[in-house]
Amino acid sequence: MTAPKLKGKQTVAFATPPVIVGFGSVVGPMEAQGPLGSCFHKILKDTLDGEQTWEKTESKMLKDAVKMVIAQAQLTDKDINYLLAGDLLNQIISTNYAARDVSVPLIGLYGACSTMALGLALGSMLIDGGYGDRVVAAASSHHDTAERQFRFPTELGSQRQMYAQWTVTGAGATLLAKQGYGVKVTHATMGKIVDLGVCDVNNMGAAMAPAITDTIISHFKDLAIDESAYDLVISGDLGQVGLDISKDLLRQAGYQLDKKFTDCGVLIYDPNQDTHAGGSGCGCSAVVINSHIMQELLAGRLRRVLFVGSGALMSSTSCAQGESIPAIGHAVVLEAPA
Amino acid sequence: MTAPKLKGKQTVAFATPPVIVGFGSVVGPMEAQGPLGSCFHKILKDTLDGEQTWEKTESKMLKDAVKMVIAQAQLTDKDINYLLAGDLLNQIISTNYAARDVSVPLIGLYGACSTMALGLALGSMLIDGGYGDRVVAAASSHHDTAERQFRFPTELGSQRQMYAQWTVTGAGATLLAKQGYGVKVTHATMGKIVDLGVCDVNNMGAAMAPAITDTIISHFKDLAIDESAYDLVISGDLGQVGLDISKDLLRQAGYQLDKKFTDCGVLIYDPNQDTHAGGSGCGCSAVVINSHIMQELLAGRLRRVLFVGSGALMSSTSCAQGESIPAIGHAVVLEAPA
Repeated sequence: MTAPKLKGKQTVAFATPPVIVGFGSVVGPMEAQGPLGSCFHKILKDTLDGEQTWEKTESKMLKDAVKMVIAQAQLTDKDINYLLAGDLLNQIISTNYAARDVSVPLIGLYGACSTMALGLALGSMLIDGGYGDRVVAAASSHHDTAERQFRFPTELGSQRQMYAQWTVTGAGATLLAKQGYGVKVTHATMGKIVDLGVCDVNNMGAAMAPAITDTIISHFKDLAIDESAYDLVISGDLGQVGLDISKDLLRQAGYQLDKKFTDCGVLIYDPNQDTHAGGSGCGCSAVVINSHIMQELLAGRLRRVLFVGSGALMSSTSCAQGESIPAIGHAVVLEAPA
Repeated sequence: MTAPKLKGKQTVAFATPPVIVGFGSVVGPMEAQGPLGSCFHKILKDTLDGEQTWEKTESKMLKDAVKMVIAQAQLTDKDINYLLAGDLLNQIISTNYAARDVSVPLIGLYGACSTMALGLALGSMLIDGGYGDRVVAAASSHHDTAERQFRFPTELGSQRQMYAQWTVTGAGATLLAKQGYGVKVTHATMGKIVDLGVCDVNNMGAAMAPAITDTIISHFKDLAIDESAYDLVISGDLGQVGLDISKDLLRQAGYQLDKKFTDCGVLIYDPNQDTHAGGSGCGCSAVVINSHIMQELLAGRLRRVLFVGSGALMSSTSCAQGESIPAIGHAVVLEAPA
C-alpha cells in the first residue's frame, strides 16, 4: 500500500518526484539588459526577430524554447509524451501555432501568469501517475502583443501608472522526466480563484496578492510546515506592489517570509529600466524559473524553493463590463539534486 | 508490478477507470427545440436569462452546470479536488468568473471545441493517478458571445455560408470519481496539432476533420483495435461537412466507420432549424455528451463509445494575419456500467 498522494485539501506529494532534465529560456533585448541577462539561453536581437508581426515572434520564441530543451537532452519530438503550454493571447495562439511544428500531443492551458507553474504541476502529475515518461511544460508572453491586446495601441505611448507591471518578452520551457539527474518537483498545490474586488487592470499585483497568499498558506497547512521548510519562496509575477501586499498578508497570518520571499517580476528588471512595479506575463516566471532559479538549484546555492505562479484572469471584455479581477495561484516545490 | 498505462504513442489505459457519477447540461431555447431537447437538464428561457450581457449569461450557465452535478451527487464544493474547465472566450472568462463562485482548485484549459474531451481525459488521469477522489470537468459556449468575438456584431445579421456551423448556447459538466456507479472512462488518446492549410474560418469542419481522423487512427493503432470495438464513435464538433470528410479519410485508411460515426454538432439541431452544417462550440459536445450519450450508456443502448473532441485553434488575430487553422482532437472511451 503506497502512501496517499493527496495531502490536506489542495496539495499533492509525488510518489516518485519527476526530474527536470532540461530547461530553456528565450528573451527579448530589454530582458537581456536586466540583472538576469547573463542567465538566459537565447536573446532576440529585436522584438520582431525577423517576423512580420509580434504574434508570430512570440509563437516562434515559444517553439524555440520547446525545441531547445528537447534538443539539449538529445531527444526528438517522438520521445515526448505531452506538451503542456499556454500564453496570454486570445485563444492561446502563441501556443497553438508553436505546437504546429512540434509533433507532440498538446494540452492547452490558460492560467495567465500562473501558466508555467500550472504546467509544471500538471506535467509532474502526468509523469508520476505513469501516463508518460517525458513532458515539456512551457509558456510565453510578448510585451507588444499583450500591450495591444489588453491595453492601448502600442504606438500610442500611453503614460503608465507607477504601480503597473511591464509584460515580459520571453518564453521558457521545462523538460520533466521520470528518470535522470536534475532538480526534482516534489509537491504541487493547486489554487482556487480569489477575487476581493480589485477592478483596476493596471494594478494586477494588488489583485493577485490575496490569491497567492491563499495558496502559500494552504500549502503550509496541508503539509504542516512553515517558511522554514524553504530557502526561497518566489512568486511569478506579483511585482513589487503585489509582493509587499502578500508579505503583509502572510505576516498577519503568522508567517514571516520577508527576507526569503521574492518575485520573478521583481528580479527580471533593474529599477532604472523604467518598468515601474516590475515584470509580468506568462513569459516572466517562465524565463526566470527556467534560467536563474534552476541554475541556483543545480549549483546548490538553493536547496528547496516554493514557486507560486500567479494569474490575473480577466479579459478586456470582462473589464469593460465592470467585472473585478479573479486571480489564482498554483505552487510547485523545486528541490536541488541530492 | 502493474501494467504500463501508456499504450502505443498517444493512448493511456486507466488502471482503475474513473466513474462518471454525475453529469449535467444547461442549454438555450434553440437547443431545447432540437432533437435532443428532452434530454437536457436545464433550459434558459431566453439567451440572456436575466443577465445584462451574454458573457455573464454564459458564465452563469457554466457555474450552474458545475453546481448541478455536485448537488446531484449530494456533495459540496469541499468534496471536489479539481475543476477542469474552459470555454471559447478570450482568456476563458466564462470559466474564470464561474469558478469565482465554486470553491474548488481550478485548472484552466483551452482546447476550443475539444475542451470537454480534454477535461475528461486529464480529469481521469488525475483520479486514476491518485491526485484526487473527485473531479469536475466542464465547458461552455454561447452563440452570441462567440458570434461577436469571432465573426460580426451580432446585430448585423450577416448571411452565413451553408458549410458554416452554429455556436451552441450551452454548458455541460461531468463529475468523475474514484468510486461509484456509472459510465466509466477506460482510455484516453491525446491529440497532436494537424494543420493542412485551411484558412476559411467559416469552414471549421474541413479544418478539423484531418486532426480528428489522425486521433481516431492513432487510437485504433495504439490499442491494436478497429471500429468493431465501439458501438459509436462521436466527434464534437465536426458538423456535417467535417464529418463527411473525416469518414472519407478514415475509409481511405481502411476503417469503415460510416454507420457508427456521428457528431454532436449534427445531432443537436434539426435541419429545419437553419443552422446549416450543424452545431459547434465547447458547449455543443459538453451538453450532448452530458445528456443523451450518458443516458444511452446508462440505459445499456450503447455499451462502448469513443468520444473525440475537436478543436479549431485559431483566433481573430491569427486569421487577420493570414494564418491557417491549427486543429486538434482529443479522445476518451466511455463504457457502460457492467
